[in-house]
Amino acid sequence: MTNTRTIDSRLSAWRAATPGSTHRNHLNNAGAGLMPLSVVEAMVDHIKLEAEIGGYEAADARAAAITSTYAAVATLIGTAPQNIALVGNATHGFIQSISSFDLQPGDVIVTSRSDYTSYQIQFIALTQRLGVRIVHAPELPGGGIDPDAVRDLLRTASCRLVHLSWVPTHSGLVQNVEAVGAVCEEFGVPYLIDACQAAGQIPIDVSRLRCDYLSVTARKFLRGPRGIGFLYASERALKRGDHPLFVDMRGAIWEAPDRYRIADTARRYEDWEFPYALVLGLGAAARYASEVGVAAGGARASQLAAELRQRLDAIDGVRALDRGSNPCAIVTAEVSGWYAPDLVNALRERRINVAATLRWFGLLDLSERGVESALRLSPHYYNTEAEIDEAIGAVTELAASKRY
Amino acid sequence: MTNTRTIDSRLSAWRAATPGSTHRNHLNNAGAGLMPLSVVEAMVDHIKLEAEIGGYEAADARAAAITSTYAAVATLIGTAPQNIALVGNATHGFIQSISSFDLQPGDVIVTSRSDYTSYQIQFIALTQRLGVRIVHAPELPGGGIDPDAVRDLLRTASCRLVHLSWVPTHSGLVQNVEAVGAVCEEFGVPYLIDACQAAGQIPIDVSRLRCDYLSVTARKFLRGPRGIGFLYASERALKRGDHPLFVDMRGAIWEAPDRYRIADTARRYEDWEFPYALVLGLGAAARYASEVGVAAGGARASQLAAELRQRLDAIDGVRALDRGSNPCAIVTAEVSGWYAPDLVNALRERRINVAATLRWFGLLDLSERGVESALRLSPHYYNTEAEIDEAIGAVTELAASKRY
Repeated sequence: MTNTRTIDSRLSAWRAATPGSTHRNHLNNAGAGLMPLSVVEAMVDHIKLEAEIGGYEAADARAAAITSTYAAVATLIGTAPQNIALVGNATHGFIQSISSFDLQPGDVIVTSRSDYTSYQIQFIALTQRLGVRIVHAPELPGGGIDPDAVRDLLRTASCRLVHLSWVPTHSGLVQNVEAVGAVCEEFGVPYLIDACQAAGQIPIDVSRLRCDYLSVTARKFLRGPRGIGFLYASERALKRGDHPLFVDMRGAIWEAPDRYRIADTARRYEDWEFPYALVLGLGAAARYASEVGVAAGGARASQLAAELRQRLDAIDGVRALDRGSNPCAIVTAEVSGWYAPDLVNALRERRINVAATLRWFGLLDLSERGVESALRLSPHYYNTEAEIDEAIGAVTELAASKRY
Repeated sequence: MTNTRTIDSRLSAWRAATPGSTHRNHLNNAGAGLMPLSVVEAMVDHIKLEAEIGGYEAADARAAAITSTYAAVATLIGTAPQNIALVGNATHGFIQSISSFDLQPGDVIVTSRSDYTSYQIQFIALTQRLGVRIVHAPELPGGGIDPDAVRDLLRTASCRLVHLSWVPTHSGLVQNVEAVGAVCEEFGVPYLIDACQAAGQIPIDVSRLRCDYLSVTARKFLRGPRGIGFLYASERALKRGDHPLFVDMRGAIWEAPDRYRIADTARRYEDWEFPYALVLGLGAAARYASEVGVAAGGARASQLAAELRQRLDAIDGVRALDRGSNPCAIVTAEVSGWYAPDLVNALRERRINVAATLRWFGLLDLSERGVESALRLSPHYYNTEAEIDEAIGAVTELAASKRY
């Protein structure tokens, strides 16, 4: 009873701080979470200041607040500000980190069958341009990468690095990132994690992950602005002298006609130019996430998702698709007779926000299961039980009136 | 008389649309121009919409306006929307274009002695990683790249591409980009232009430039938001099948486990994720620039700069540094006895916005002239003659009270 009352009172506060919660039943937090007021205000205030006193002058005037974004983000993942680089999005962070490796023909990159689409495409591009070899590690019977299979691969292949998307974009699967990290450390192989869909719903402690790099986007469960993110670079990576192939004048000083000097910190992965309004928005989002508590917020989001998943799967013609032993707050479901994007539009007309997943978003995973398209619903801690009921009601009705 | 009255009335309108013009004497348009109201409103409105209905949902709701950014930008440089990719900044555009080339050991990249610092650093990184060779083309006696020297280089070297910063960041020099374009076309060598400091002050017609790529940032003379820019890719580049090494799921479809298909348009250079508020701000900035007229606005900015340059050079202890036959609206000057960043701060206390240039921003150019640091002043069409007077008065006073 006390517990329920506590949640009720926190829920009211969360929703009061979330303007969008009165307009929409937002179950698209894996796309972009609804921003809290503090994030909106941080951005709008800075844009107005830039217009008043100038773009560089505003950045100087707000230098302390900009610096505090690094601290807020570092706190969130258990590291120091000097290990944080701000980047446009997680993919950009991925590129900055992977381009730090001088990949050679024959080098093996081990990844999962469910890694994010953009990376899968880029891996193919790397095989074509550089002659590296991509190996998709085998899965456990219930889904998800098999850490022992990764160990076998690292034992035999000349593996240059391991890349793993913690949570894929097209499913609620949560990869066992810690176990894979232990294997990578055992073999001394650099380990890169895409934590895009994890950040804000799963507590992150980079020391437990033992990763060299971890990239995050602000807009999803972290509820930050679109178009900003960050990259964590470990002390190990910094000491190794890693730096992106296309290092910028922010990350290096031009010392002599044929020589530059790399920044000591993760600044070496950054661009000169930043959308500082978004940087301040990211700081506000990180602070808000810490206030709410990622563990508590994520537990509630997962609980709402579990209910959603179970009830969707019980609807005639609907099949829940999420695999793995402990799925997160992303629910994917195939609705027979519907091309998922049409269903997204039909739900949006009822002011319910969800997203669609197409086969090619998770080609290796979804093809073998015969999925053409699927609905993706991703609640967060600020969603209500009534909103779950409403979504279930709407999907039930739409599933019954099959489109084709 | 009529002409003066027309300028006076336009000037009033420009200043009325520029909130910052009442707060600061902004002579830092080469850093970031003061945004017009329409740009601020486009951004703030979209951020609020995102907070109300969701990030992806807001992008869908404003899809037509987002599409119109491509058209507005294309109009500004004389191309079609399909040849425009939106990118985080000009440097990102540069990386997307140059990484499209499968550079091999021994390949030569020809560039200028005044190209932007970040590119100079990246060229060194490319020599180290890929074994390419960088050649800085000789200059004309009065400054600026010598197109005939470029011809001689292309005749002898196995030149893979030519890269030229139209206007360097550390000087008012305007490179002869058209003449170099003619030489590149003569030899069939791909030609990349950084138009960062040119856009918004010099009319751009990519067909006259004959370039394969041209990259632009929004925030400078174009008066757009910080943290957004665009890349032009020619039909020649698209047909050649160029695409960035790290192509994103926005730029390619994952068709089969080992195969992807590149987008037909310049979308292939784009990231999946965008700060759509800034995209809309860029569209508003491009439309505003077209309304003002880049030729008319740029002519006025250059005229104010010429006056500033001449009067600065006449101050005791001040030396104007800009070279080339036809310098633009960027004025650089060395002030004896002052470390330029200190002078920037002293001027900012008088609400005059300028910037500092350090030797390493233009290492090849500034070292040979013995410049340690310099003041950079960059007026725009919305500045007044009175503001020029005020800046001259302040520099005269500060130059007389030498710091060391």
